[in-house]
Amino acid sequence: MSKGITKRSDDYSRWYTDLVLRSELADYSPVKGCMVIRPNGYALWENMQKELDGMLKATGHQNAYFPLFIPESFLHREKEHVKGFAPECAVVTYGGGKELEEKLVVRPTSETIIYSMYSKWIQSYRDLPLLLNQWANVVRWEKRTRLFLRTTEFLWQEGHTVHETEQEAEEEVLRILEIYRTFLEDYLAIPVLTGRKSEAEKFAGALRTYSIEALTQDRRALQAGTSHNLGQNFAKAFNVNFQNRKGEMEFAWQTSWGVSTRLIGGVVMVHGDDQGLILPPRIAPTQVILIPIWKNDEEMREILPMLASIQADLKGVARVASDTREEYSPGWKFNNWELRGVPLRIELGPRDAAKKSVMAVSRLDRKKCVIPQGEIRSRIPVLLEEIQKNLYDRALAFREENSSEVDDYETFRSLMAEQPGFVNAFWCGQASCESKVKEDTKATIRVIPMKETGEKGACILCGNRSEGRVTFAKAY
Amino acid sequence: MSKGITKRSDDYSRWYTDLVLRSELADYSPVKGCMVIRPNGYALWENMQKELDGMLKATGHQNAYFPLFIPESFLHREKEHVKGFAPECAVVTYGGGKELEEKLVVRPTSETIIYSMYSKWIQSYRDLPLLLNQWANVVRWEKRTRLFLRTTEFLWQEGHTVHETEQEAEEEVLRILEIYRTFLEDYLAIPVLTGRKSEAEKFAGALRTYSIEALTQDRRALQAGTSHNLGQNFAKAFNVNFQNRKGEMEFAWQTSWGVSTRLIGGVVMVHGDDQGLILPPRIAPTQVILIPIWKNDEEMREILPMLASIQADLKGVARVASDTREEYSPGWKFNNWELRGVPLRIELGPRDAAKKSVMAVSRLDRKKCVIPQGEIRSRIPVLLEEIQKNLYDRALAFREENSSEVDDYETFRSLMAEQPGFVNAFWCGQASCESKVKEDTKATIRVIPMKETGEKGACILCGNRSEGRVTFAKAY
Repeated sequence: MSKGITKRSDDYSRWYTDLVLRSELADYSPVKGCMVIRPNGYALWENMQKELDGMLKATGHQNAYFPLFIPESFLHREKEHVKGFAPECAVVTYGGGKELEEKLVVRPTSETIIYSMYSKWIQSYRDLPLLLNQWANVVRWEKRTRLFLRTTEFLWQEGHTVHETEQEAEEEVLRILEIYRTFLEDYLAIPVLTGRKSEAEKFAGALRTYSIEALTQDRRALQAGTSHNLGQNFAKAFNVNFQNRKGEMEFAWQTSWGVSTRLIGGVVMVHGDDQGLILPPRIAPTQVILIPIWKNDEEMREILPMLASIQADLKGVARVASDTREEYSPGWKFNNWELRGVPLRIELGPRDAAKKSVMAVSRLDRKKCVIPQGEIRSRIPVLLEEIQKNLYDRALAFREENSSEVDDYETFRSLMAEQPGFVNAFWCGQASCESKVKEDTKATIRVIPMKETGEKGACILCGNRSEGRVTFAKAY
Repeated sequence: MSKGITKRSDDYSRWYTDLVLRSELADYSPVKGCMVIRPNGYALWENMQKELDGMLKATGHQNAYFPLFIPESFLHREKEHVKGFAPECAVVTYGGGKELEEKLVVRPTSETIIYSMYSKWIQSYRDLPLLLNQWANVVRWEKRTRLFLRTTEFLWQEGHTVHETEQEAEEEVLRILEIYRTFLEDYLAIPVLTGRKSEAEKFAGALRTYSIEALTQDRRALQAGTSHNLGQNFAKAFNVNFQNRKGEMEFAWQTSWGVSTRLIGGVVMVHGDDQGLILPPRIAPTQVILIPIWKNDEEMREILPMLASIQADLKGVARVASDTREEYSPGWKFNNWELRGVPLRIELGPRDAAKKSVMAVSRLDRKKCVIPQGEIRSRIPVLLEEIQKNLYDRALAFREENSSEVDDYETFRSLMAEQPGFVNAFWCGQASCESKVKEDTKATIRVIPMKETGEKGACILCGNRSEGRVTFAKAY
């Protein structure tokens, strides 16, 4: 219960909330379901944005910005889409003191408003592919909210692309899925499963939805990003057509995809421990915290300039801060920076100073390591990369321990009740079996794996022939 | 009328709109008053954000994110504030299919929602100063809108700081004003006047408002950024108090300040010409465009590899693109990249190739300059900085030509009618004279200069004693 944080083993859900609040990532706001992202949380988001934005630009995507408001009638043009989103909408009915002629929906996602513009901009195959992305806030009126994981307003990026052919659209959807997988695994140190969603779980209006799914420490799935092949559904609803290479008019093939501030919740849930956050070095706003240790003024006068020169030495190779406050003890500082998840702590006390070394302590396992001061600049980046890798490996090992193949429904049910995780089981493909499993166990199909193993079997529920295993889990 | 752009001398207002649309900075959206910021415009905004954000972080400010929605009652807590903003609000009355118990205002600015959080976070002088900034969208229901300059939704940054003393708050307000001035002058190449606003023009709820004001080519003032000393007005309304160093509870001293996507309109208006945009090199998404010239395939085979090696050579010293499309002529490309405002064009034709040189052409004045290929990497950054400086100098000269001191009202009126600009005139300080001038001439007081010259005079309207000149102009 250190620092007022509930232990994971006592109450995982409270642990999560305590951690988010105490580490000052976010706070509740006076507006129901909306959160405030505090500087610690926002700096994390900025680092995520920077990396992902770079990956998207490197693959030819450009950023743009479309209106927050959507005329209500637009939402109704694609019938599956409106069914999925209308119940979650916030609606503006007054503007400038007058009742509006047409109500405006605050965007829950921007397919409709964006494609109304695409319809105007796209004439010919020469205008394709059109590869745009938007960083924006969106609003979905959620009944039960949770900091970062499910909030009424959240920040995200939404990509919206247009292609000449179905195949190009499908390639784009999979390219983005792969970017998301790489981003989560290489930067957030979160291993993810990738795969296709079932009809019941796909995006409202899509032909096919692909997803990346992480596993949290309470063994539940966290959908961390989705990539949708929209086919020509929206193109037909919004008249996004073009003259193809044969000179004929044709409806365009579209995709949309997004990740959100939910990823911050994912980082907390996957990596945190009872002491606090553990931030992956590659996205940690502060990667190294320098903490001086002294007993008297004389020691302080020796330590502080040495600390300052170490900090200067690290400039350009790591994001470093030092905590030289006199009103707090070293022990208090250790706790505080552990709570905030800084991956590496460097302690400098009189004995270290005498030996011209420092003590480096990993946030991951508190492993200590003496580093000669002359080697700091070369060693610290290596240590940070080690922590990054170990964090990923630990999360991967946890996922593997909590993934299983199950072939009978009784075992499936008891696993989901007692020790859930990713359960790979045969499914016949029928929505009725899928919904019965959900009703019985609260587990849903998280992904249908992309690669077929060739292994055939019998549906875990009805026993009918199944073309392959799918991954079930209880999800956030 | 090149490229379908109205000439400035024919209709400045249409020229502006033509330019924004044709250069694909922005487009009209189906939502009244809301615009779409297209990739060309958004890339400009991203470059502006990057520079300004760096300046704000370097002075100790951190980013955060607060909710889009504000409970209607919050807006009413500060009486001047609600008077100023309530008429412009968009109001959400339905959420999740139900009528809301309390209506939610879509933020027109975030003082009220942010300070309700500050009230919770701030306990003691040790929590101060609190220096937060937010990059966000805001909505103001405008009757007459104009791309970038006045739109129902716009993007901006809004800083909100809290201080122990009135003096510290005032210092912050002036520090930010100076950051804005530097940002506009050094990056956007836009010279600005700085000064205080009159009571009639200040921010609703502020003690004092300071502003930076640019002059457009049709000789009107463009308010380009504001910095408000809020005093304790909002602190009292939202109970933002703290225990001071004497152990007493005290209301805090606050500031808020912002610049918006209006700045993009400013860049267009101040620098553009009848051929198109002229973007300041420091913020231009593409600084140099390479255009190959060939008559036949043989020449093409010689030119293209040389062009590619020049592009590679410029990597890391300038943002470069090359236009190697075969379906467009060099002349068409020259026009197109001039329209888009790329500051420097490099032409490479057979004769240049033979001499192992290139022809560099400045967007500002079409001045040409032969550069040996071996010197490109060193010369191009210098040329870009020259263009940056010349662009600023030209804008400054235009402003100086269109600034005057006027001491009689007849001259003042005829100037404002025929050849407006910044007119420095004596004013007695009375709101009645200010509003009469506005009624007669549409001119308003843009700033009350910060430095007193000591020069006293008689109010241009009533003839009463004036403590100094103020700057009048017709404004956007």
